[in-house]
Amino acid sequence: MRMTHQIAILGASGYTGAELIRLIAGHPNLSIAALSGERKAGMTVAEVFPHLRHLDLPTLCRIEDIDFGRIDLCFCALPHKTSQAVIRDLPRTLKIVDLSADFRLREAEAYRRWYGNDHIAMALQAEAVYGLTEFYRDQIRAARLVAGTGCNAATGQYLVRPLIAAGVIGLDDIILDMKCAASGAGRSLKENLLHAELSEGYHAYALGSSHRHVGEFDQEFSALAGRPVRVQFTPHLIPANRGVLCTAYVSGAATAIHAALERAYADEPFVQVLPLGATPSTHDVRGSNHVHVGVAADRIEGRAVLVGVLDNLTKGSSGQALQNANLMLGEVETTGLTMAPLFP
Amino acid sequence: MRMTHQIAILGASGYTGAELIRLIAGHPNLSIAALSGERKAGMTVAEVFPHLRHLDLPTLCRIEDIDFGRIDLCFCALPHKTSQAVIRDLPRTLKIVDLSADFRLREAEAYRRWYGNDHIAMALQAEAVYGLTEFYRDQIRAARLVAGTGCNAATGQYLVRPLIAAGVIGLDDIILDMKCAASGAGRSLKENLLHAELSEGYHAYALGSSHRHVGEFDQEFSALAGRPVRVQFTPHLIPANRGVLCTAYVSGAATAIHAALERAYADEPFVQVLPLGATPSTHDVRGSNHVHVGVAADRIEGRAVLVGVLDNLTKGSSGQALQNANLMLGEVETTGLTMAPLFP
Amino acid sequence: MRMTHQIAILGASGYTGAELIRLIAGHPNLSIAALSGERKAGMTVAEVFPHLRHLDLPTLCRIEDIDFGRIDLCFCALPHKTSQAVIRDLPRTLKIVDLSADFRLREAEAYRRWYGNDHIAMALQAEAVYGLTEFYRDQIRAARLVAGTGCNAATGQYLVRPLIAAGVIGLDDIILDMKCAASGAGRSLKENLLHAELSEGYHAYALGSSHRHVGEFDQEFSALAGRPVRVQFTPHLIPANRGVLCTAYVSGAATAIHAALERAYADEPFVQVLPLGATPSTHDVRGSNHVHVGVAADRIEGRAVLVGVLDNLTKGSSGQALQNANLMLGEVETTGLTMAPLFP
Amino acid sequence: MRMTHQIAILGASGYTGAELIRLIAGHPNLSIAALSGERKAGMTVAEVFPHLRHLDLPTLCRIEDIDFGRIDLCFCALPHKTSQAVIRDLPRTLKIVDLSADFRLREAEAYRRWYGNDHIAMALQAEAVYGLTEFYRDQIRAARLVAGTGCNAATGQYLVRPLIAAGVIGLDDIILDMKCAASGAGRSLKENLLHAELSEGYHAYALGSSHRHVGEFDQEFSALAGRPVRVQFTPHLIPANRGVLCTAYVSGAATAIHAALERAYADEPFVQVLPLGATPSTHDVRGSNHVHVGVAADRIEGRAVLVGVLDNLTKGSSGQALQNANLMLGEVETTGLTMAPLFP
Repeated sequence: MRMTHQIAILGASGYTGAELIRLIAGHPNLSIAALSGERKAGMTVAEVFPHLRHLDLPTLCRIEDIDFGRIDLCFCALPHKTSQAVIRDLPRTLKIVDLSADFRLREAEAYRRWYGNDHIAMALQAEAVYGLTEFYRDQIRAARLVAGTGCNAATGQYLVRPLIAAGVIGLDDIILDMKCAASGAGRSLKENLLHAELSEGYHAYALGSSHRHVGEFDQEFSALAGRPVRVQFTPHLIPANRGVLCTAYVSGAATAIHAALERAYADEPFVQVLPLGATPSTHDVRGSNHVHVGVAADRIEGRAVLVGVLDNLTKGSSGQALQNANLMLGEVETTGLTMAPLFP
Repeated sequence: MRMTHQIAILGASGYTGAELIRLIAGHPNLSIAALSGERKAGMTVAEVFPHLRHLDLPTLCRIEDIDFGRIDLCFCALPHKTSQAVIRDLPRTLKIVDLSADFRLREAEAYRRWYGNDHIAMALQAEAVYGLTEFYRDQIRAARLVAGTGCNAATGQYLVRPLIAAGVIGLDDIILDMKCAASGAGRSLKENLLHAELSEGYHAYALGSSHRHVGEFDQEFSALAGRPVRVQFTPHLIPANRGVLCTAYVSGAATAIHAALERAYADEPFVQVLPLGATPSTHDVRGSNHVHVGVAADRIEGRAVLVGVLDNLTKGSSGQALQNANLMLGEVETTGLTMAPLFP
Repeated sequence: MRMTHQIAILGASGYTGAELIRLIAGHPNLSIAALSGERKAGMTVAEVFPHLRHLDLPTLCRIEDIDFGRIDLCFCALPHKTSQAVIRDLPRTLKIVDLSADFRLREAEAYRRWYGNDHIAMALQAEAVYGLTEFYRDQIRAARLVAGTGCNAATGQYLVRPLIAAGVIGLDDIILDMKCAASGAGRSLKENLLHAELSEGYHAYALGSSHRHVGEFDQEFSALAGRPVRVQFTPHLIPANRGVLCTAYVSGAATAIHAALERAYADEPFVQVLPLGATPSTHDVRGSNHVHVGVAADRIEGRAVLVGVLDNLTKGSSGQALQNANLMLGEVETTGLTMAPLFP
Repeated sequence: MRMTHQIAILGASGYTGAELIRLIAGHPNLSIAALSGERKAGMTVAEVFPHLRHLDLPTLCRIEDIDFGRIDLCFCALPHKTSQAVIRDLPRTLKIVDLSADFRLREAEAYRRWYGNDHIAMALQAEAVYGLTEFYRDQIRAARLVAGTGCNAATGQYLVRPLIAAGVIGLDDIILDMKCAASGAGRSLKENLLHAELSEGYHAYALGSSHRHVGEFDQEFSALAGRPVRVQFTPHLIPANRGVLCTAYVSGAATAIHAALERAYADEPFVQVLPLGATPSTHDVRGSNHVHVGVAADRIEGRAVLVGVLDNLTKGSSGQALQNANLMLGEVETTGLTMAPLFP
């Protein structure tokens, strides 16, 4: 007999919340027992997300109204800083997948530098496992608290981690040029996210490698290399809804790089390495939990360019979160995540 | 023990072909045994549709290379006119769901008027069942050949059929104003479908109720009413990829109309009637097999406006086709079709 | 010697403000002397609108900081309700073109019904001239205060006014189905205007002819017909930035309708009547002050369909405003407005 | 008394042709005497470009039907390879601005390497002046034949030329990551340019610095540096209609770089250098002849990132072409090019 796990989603009224509901609705062994949304407490899901009106779901409530004794696993899709305050007060036995940035950086100092404030739940931060499934699978399986990665940070790591691990690229001239769709910024009411100002108006932001996800690159790449690694990183906001595309410029031989990627992902269900020279589109992964990576040699000897794509709301956050939850709950890792991308 | 049905898709390299593959990939009891694509025969699915590269699928072939003796059901996603020529020559025992316009119109004369040529498989046309599942369910279950509806034609009928059946609207002043996304035009290389010419450039076409889907409205509404019904219909091409939104202007009482819709769709898994006065968005159904319908009273006594939305590639063609195939194969009607919409 | 008119723009930090600056920058005889923006007072135009950074313009200020004694004409691009309060307190000799809804409805009762509050500057409302240039040209030339029309209201009137005036259509079954781009909603921070929620997600709103622009149709069409005329009107929000497309369904002979349109606009510099049966796209007018109108006969005897397009920010608001200002200042009506549309 | 120059546009039915007509329509001293379009010969401009129907223009003709004796200057907006064959046969006294790639590369060998065929008008190639106005102004003024630059090539050069000239960056690690809108690919009927496949589906192409515009970078940067300079270059196709955004990664001090840019462009009417650390959007230049460039220091000592934007159809091709034509005809360089950008 199958066991059904009871799930709570905190911060269910944002895009990652909606994506979690979409994915869990297709999961045979998870059941949504509680949904919180502070400003929208009391509203039905049909009111907040009309596209989910066919589902039988609990009304949105306040966090304090949830009986966590009945919950097996809790997804936290709350804003940064709020998340650590809420999670600090949740039962210590509750399994948690956090989608915020709050538990990604293991060093208090690094957290302070990138986020500008002190962390208020340092003990939990020490306990958290970084949620990039393919590289932390065993630890995630045993974890109580998993910190979902940044969507940009995930995309860059899928390209670069196997290359650092295999020692096939230089470590001092890695450049990551990222093209991010609008939903990555969340359901934020900002002028530059308005249709009239984003459609036809693409732009860079956080110049000079000042974006917070750089902290994740520093932490992860340095740990992997056993020495400090500092990348250059520029994110761009693109007039699209879903997708992250990372173009990486590295020194190294394209064939060795390609071989390292193929080896690293040979048994991975969600990472596809394209033939050498081929290049992916964000269309190829939209709405799915897949990552596509491609690599080509530059005309300049010893230089290569890589391109990786994923859907920021699926593999970049909520899909990754469910993949991790499956591991934490003893489910098959891919359950609920095998839907094909939506094209066109 | 479950039985796996062997499936062929003819014309698999277009958008409806890709959508069929996406949906069947999530169906537990269907297996794709053959895919045809005349101009792309010999190519792998990964080459034609990189977003499906993770699936284990047959290489595209020519129709004549398919052994139809092994096939339980064949989806025809071929162009109009080609479809009737191909289907005429398929085994008479093969179950077929046709997605083209070739078998929608029961009268040879109507076919000739709207399509400008004689039908070359009149005997089959007589045998075909019109594929609007909710209204032809029993006949579809027993059918060998089902004719998928036009996506615009489907959208309009979901709004108007229950009203004609219930006698709650006038029959002589029905206006259907349709807003159609680009994928409804297929993978056609036309200037007005280029991103540079459609994005920011929306427009009406087929003015004066001259669009071919009008033939379906005439046939279906007249049969239902027991007298000729002629609607006005204007389609518009909208800068979006998926979606049909139909705004219908009718005479009648909004409350009676709303009640008729609720009655008609009370037990339907895929049709959601919104509360009186509410209005749907194409976002609410994207990538799903759902239809959302809303109705409101006009400030003019005795006039009402309805709005209906569906995804032209799912409920408007390939999802509808799979729903019908499920019935023809003895499967549960909703199998493989319960995924939630993709938002945002 | 040319005289330069000194211009103030109140509410310059919104889209219609930006559009006014764009147009006036190309006008040889107008000079921008003051720009107000309450929340952005103290900021330069380059900070608020980087696309205008090459222009030499005054810093944004508060309205009370403007010396109206030096101003020849003032454009008010303020929100509704704010506008009437501000204009009430401006010098009575100042020429004003108001782009808000505050002075469009001549009857206090109509204003109250559609806007839900009492008007606080009734005396000025009596003085205001409705700003649809082609139909109020002489009055505008002599006016001190001109009320810019709604962009939807303008589009519908370009289609229907000549038909009512010529008596070639029925007055009791006019339906206007409007497709509006996002900038028509202004620079408002609303979820449904976010790129992620509008792109791919189009929808109707203000069902049942409840949109405020209906008040303008009622007033203008009834005055023209000499009897009450009540239209049905449904606006739809379309994933585009600029454009209004109106599809009108009327009873009447298409040839008579087409002839009436050609007669009405024969000498108009900005209104183009397409050949009978042709249909315009919003691309044809984007960024310009043009209106394109087309008409076709329906297959139903005695029924016709019209399609009209304009750019909501240009001919639908700021371009119209400048055209009216030209008349009020004794300039050639088309000065600064002859730029061709931007395509693609 | 002003003199009116008679203008011909060859290949007027594409996007750059339409853009030339738009711009020339606003030029007081140019008159369009002939428009060619091989496949659309005999059609009016209103039929080919409905947005230009208000203009009084010649019907499209074949090139051989043009009397070049009456033409003062000819814009060639023909495809690559066609252009050199046509221009070879034009009168040797005719002033020509070519918008194709045919005369950009001065070395026959370089042309053959990047374009794969021999040049058939080598003598003319020697005569041609590279059309990047700000850097070839004097030669353009005296030229008979000017070769318009690639739009990507222009964008990259606006960022990098002043830096090489000032010696403030390293020459061996320049990376140009380009984000290009769809109109840069012309009015080509290709699947990846369809709205359904570009909207939401952005991607890199011509990986490994294999794009033809790289030939221009090689030629220009090497000439400027007095030694071979080889950049890495990756173009990406973005779901937008107009715009090129180039992100450049260089070694050098951001302050020195910023100072070099400010010096280089201090007197340029169309190039705006943003304050140090600021970053432009494609919205800031759309439909205009402006270039905006920004620069920021990276967190890594000695590394900087630059961002430049222009409108590929205006400053990137047709606007640049008119700017050059003004110089060649003795007109004021900025005439017809001072329109502000269109936002939103």
